[in-house]
This record gives sequence, C-alpha cells and structure tokens, in this order.
Amino acid sequence: MPKNEGVKIPYGIIVHMSTIIAVDIGGTQMRAAAYTQDKIKPLKQKKIPTLASEPGGLERLISVIEDVYPKDGSVAAIGLGSPGPLDPHTGYLLAPPNNPEWHNFPLAPRVAEHFGVQTFLDNDANLAGLAEYRFGAGKGHHHLLYITVSTGIGAGVIADDRLLQGYHGLAAELGHVIIDPNGPPCSCGFSGHLEAFSSGPAIVRYVLSQLDAGVTSVLKRDDSLNARVVAEAAQKGDALAIQAYQRAGEYLGIGVASFLHAFDPSIVVFGGGVSQVGSLLFDSFHASLKQRVFHPRYLEGLVITRAELGDDAGLLGARALAEMKADL
Amino acid sequence: MPKNEGVKIPYGIIVHMSTIIAVDIGGTQMRAAAYTQDKIKPLKQKKIPTLASEPGGLERLISVIEDVYPKDGSVAAIGLGSPGPLDPHTGYLLAPPNNPEWHNFPLAPRVAEHFGVQTFLDNDANLAGLAEYRFGAGKGHHHLLYITVSTGIGAGVIADDRLLQGYHGLAAELGHVIIDPNGPPCSCGFSGHLEAFSSGPAIVRYVLSQLDAGVTSVLKRDDSLNARVVAEAAQKGDALAIQAYQRAGEYLGIGVASFLHAFDPSIVVFGGGVSQVGSLLFDSFHASLKQRVFHPRYLEGLVITRAELGDDAGLLGARALAEMKADL
Repeated sequence: MPKNEGVKIPYGIIVHMSTIIAVDIGGTQMRAAAYTQDKIKPLKQKKIPTLASEPGGLERLISVIEDVYPKDGSVAAIGLGSPGPLDPHTGYLLAPPNNPEWHNFPLAPRVAEHFGVQTFLDNDANLAGLAEYRFGAGKGHHHLLYITVSTGIGAGVIADDRLLQGYHGLAAELGHVIIDPNGPPCSCGFSGHLEAFSSGPAIVRYVLSQLDAGVTSVLKRDDSLNARVVAEAAQKGDALAIQAYQRAGEYLGIGVASFLHAFDPSIVVFGGGVSQVGSLLFDSFHASLKQRVFHPRYLEGLVITRAELGDDAGLLGARALAEMKADL
Repeated sequence: MPKNEGVKIPYGIIVHMSTIIAVDIGGTQMRAAAYTQDKIKPLKQKKIPTLASEPGGLERLISVIEDVYPKDGSVAAIGLGSPGPLDPHTGYLLAPPNNPEWHNFPLAPRVAEHFGVQTFLDNDANLAGLAEYRFGAGKGHHHLLYITVSTGIGAGVIADDRLLQGYHGLAAELGHVIIDPNGPPCSCGFSGHLEAFSSGPAIVRYVLSQLDAGVTSVLKRDDSLNARVVAEAAQKGDALAIQAYQRAGEYLGIGVASFLHAFDPSIVVFGGGVSQVGSLLFDSFHASLKQRVFHPRYLEGLVITRAELGDDAGLLGARALAEMKADL
C-alpha cells in the first residue's frame, strides 16, 4: 500500500486503509497485533514474555508493537489492555501487581508519544467484555455483563452500547462487590467480596477450611492444591470437592442476581478458567440465580453463555477500545 | 404565541417555542406541569388526587394534563413518571402497587394516542436521579448515583451522561441488591436486600425486634411507631433509637461501597424522607463507606450530598426524560 504523500484521497478510502494496533499485556505474555477494520483476523501478531517484575517493560512493549507496526503510515490508533487498577481516562497504570516500575506510570501517553499515534488503555476485564460485545458471544446485544472467574473475578459492562468506565475509570469492579459483610477475606485485603467466595483461590480456601475441620476427602493440604485439582476430584465424585464448587456457584448466583438488578443486561457472558468446569459450577449458579432474582422479568430473554473469544479477547478488546475511542 | 400555520420558521425558533408536558404520578397526588425548555419554572401546573385504587385513572391523568396543556400546538413531548415496575421502552406499567386497573397497562401509548404527541415513561427514582443530574445537586457531573431512602429504597444512575435503563428497563433497582444473603425479609418478598436493612420500615422492624428481645427504650410497640417517631426518640437520646439508625447507616454504607465499585460515580445524591435525619444516619454511613471501599481512588473528588429539588424532582425528571428521548 503506497504511503499517502499529501495526495488528496477521498475520506472513505483513508478510513478503509487505517490500521489499529492492539496490545494485551498479560501476567506472563505481552501480545501485539495489527488489525484492519474490516477483518477479525490480524494482519500480523507477535508475543513476548511480559517479565513484569524486571526493568525495561516500556521498551519491551514498544519493541513488540514495532514488530507488528505497518510502515505505511496507516496506523490510526493504538489500544492497550492491562490488569488494573489503571485510569483509562488518563492512560496511567496505578499499581499493577508484581510491577513496581509501572506504579503510577503514564503508559498510554508514553506509547502515544513514541509512535505519534493516539493511544488508549483500559483493564483486561473491561476489554474482554467489550470484545465479546463487538466480536464474540454478545454480538447484537446492547446491554452486556461479562464476568471472568479465574484467580480473581473481573467484569466488564456494556450499557446501552457503551462501555461502562465511571468517573475514575474504576466501574464494573464486580469481583469486589460485597456479597456478605461478614464473609471471608478477599485478595484485595477487604472481605466478603464475590471474589472471596467464587474465585479459584476461594474454592481452594474453602476446601482447606473443611479439611482443617476434619471433613474427609481425597484432597490433601499441599502446595499443588488448586481449583483445577479440586475440579478433577469433583469429577471423580469427591463430596467435598463437589460441595466447594456448588458453594462457589451459589454465591456467584447471588452476585449475578444483584448485578441483574443493577444493570439489567440482556446477556451474561462468562470467561475465565474456573468457569470452564461447566455444570459443576453452573448447576448451583442457575438455581441460586433463579431463587434470588426479585422480579421474573429480569430473566425474560436473558442469555447466559460462555465467552467465545478465548485468548484473543484481550487483543480484540484493545482493538475495539481503540476503534471506539478514536471513533473509527 | 401564534400557532405555526405552515409559515416557514427557522428551525432554531421552533425549538425555542416547544413546550414539554411533565406528569408525576405519585401514590397520593398526580401533578402535571407545562415547561418551556429555557426555564426551570413551569408555565402552568396542576395537582389532583391520584386515587390509585379507584377506577378512571387514565381519565384523571388525561384531564390533569389537559388542564396545563397549551392550546397553541407547541407541545413537543410528554414525560410521565410513576412508581414501578414499568417498562420505559414500551411505556407499559407492569404492576403498580394498589392499582389493579393499571396492571400491564399501556400508559404512555394511551396518552400519546390521546394527545397525538410522543410520550415517554420511566419510574420515579430514575426520574428523580435524572432531575438532580439535569437541574439539581448533580449539575455538571457526568456519573451520578441517586438514592432515595424512604418507605422503600430506590435509585437512579447516570453513567457517562446517560440514564441507565437496561434491557427490560429495570436497571438501578439498587434497593433490591443483596447486602447479606441471610438478611431480613424485604417488602418485595425476597430477603437480605438493602431496602430490608436501611429503609424506614426496616428501621422500625429492627426496633420492634429489639423491644421483643427485652431491650428497654422509650419506644413502644404500637401502630403509630414509624421511622419519624424513632428519629425523634433518637434525637432525645434513646439508645435503641440511635442504634437503629446507626445500623441502617452502616448497611447503607456497605451498599454504597458496592455501588461505587459497580458504577464509580463522581456524586452520590440522597433523597427521601429517611435521609433527612442527617448525622443520625450519615455518621455511621460515612464511617462504614470509608471502611468498605476497596480502593481509595473511588473517594477522590467524590461528592456525597442531599437532593436539591424536593417535591419537584418527579416533575423535572419527567420533563428531562421527555427532552432527552425526544432529543429536544
């Protein structure tokens, strides 16, 4: 594609040629991709280790972007996704875990400055929700609730076709909604949050507490105990393992009932490793949700489904953010 | 003002001349007003008894609208506010309390048909929130949370300058967010909702439970016991009455902490009779909120204040809804 060297080209054609760069900065990998607006498949993509706790993070980020960056001047915007907390309005990372170098760090401004291209940032859960809305399970819906159940619980909300970001950019932190004021401690240091009941570590914590109380199980207190091991034990019929997932599903149902009352979506999309276990978690989830929703109308036409985009959700969300914010 | 009889008038002038009719259908009174867009004071207003349980509700509504209706053809839109549940997308009332005639009733379509003017409907709490955002305590904010604490607890949310309505129009039912899964019964028949902890009747119910348990107090179990009587006893130093409000405030703080995590507003506006008691409720509310918000950034620049519009919130909200939906 020839570089536009000042020749007047009709506006529509320029739009067609524009490229969006998307980056998903994960805990272990940084992935970058270049997209044209008309295709869901990237023109080019690249991944490198994040090495969050090592210096040089910005240089690694810039280098992985350069690896996919087209040299034809067609890049219209860059979208970045990262774990929070962060400020999507300013593009600053606030306090990403395991990365002291990036505390209160102007990530999007630095990238924008380096490439001379407008750059946008939001957190991974918001972007996965945005990706499912634009390209995945939520296509065609206007009101979407995305929940990822994994090591933590994150969420993204689309209300009336718009990503809910909030004043400080900290909206939709639904893993930290209080489910029971007297509930167990959460990874964030507070207690009683949904994440403290239904995340992978919460399931493990419950198993440990029951083992300590003398409940018999094939599960043992050791370093390899994680949510996947509990799920395997449950699939082999271990009563404690089954109960641990049922309990997580029950609290997830309580949380989602409240989220329906708050956001009234037409679709709830579940992502994250823990949500892959299927009926082990979702039988009790559905029963609990149905029991807790205070008006039957919330459930009319409501779709509850799994995320479709898998590992690409972060990249596609960063792309959708850039397209949305740059108004492409 | 002369009627526009086909003479071509520049667009801007027609907009200036248009009138909005607003109606607030309350439990005891129906109020109607005619507004021009440039003034907060109505051109004309009228109120009549609602008589919700008596037949002829639609006729009374039409008649009170006719009383304020300008005869110059200038009416551009009609906005109606009513207690829910209702569907703002279709304009149907679903099941208003004490009014069997209006169950599943096409209120907005009937009014639109009668007057030949586009007509919009939403619930009283959403509209009070919208009114405070447009004309009251929330002017200039883009992310607002309005909470009315009264016989029930209702809410209205503005996210990024838009009223959050949801797929079925049932968003922001924050009085029915689950605060404690094992909590007391709510007026809606479910349990553990914010309304079951912090509404006027919840405060009374707590007092009664403590009296039954033998706690001494100047308060007595009789028919005149209500949240106002409890507040008066508290102001005279009655320990049980003080504790009942403190407890309501504490749970309100837990609820609002979760709402900050969900919506991340820049202002929280409190309306409703119970919220008029001031520090009796709000000292414990503020302490609880501060203790429960999981990241200090939510509180940076956050305004927590009282509603400014009082009894006019319903009318001004119905007006704002009509202006917003008719894109005036």
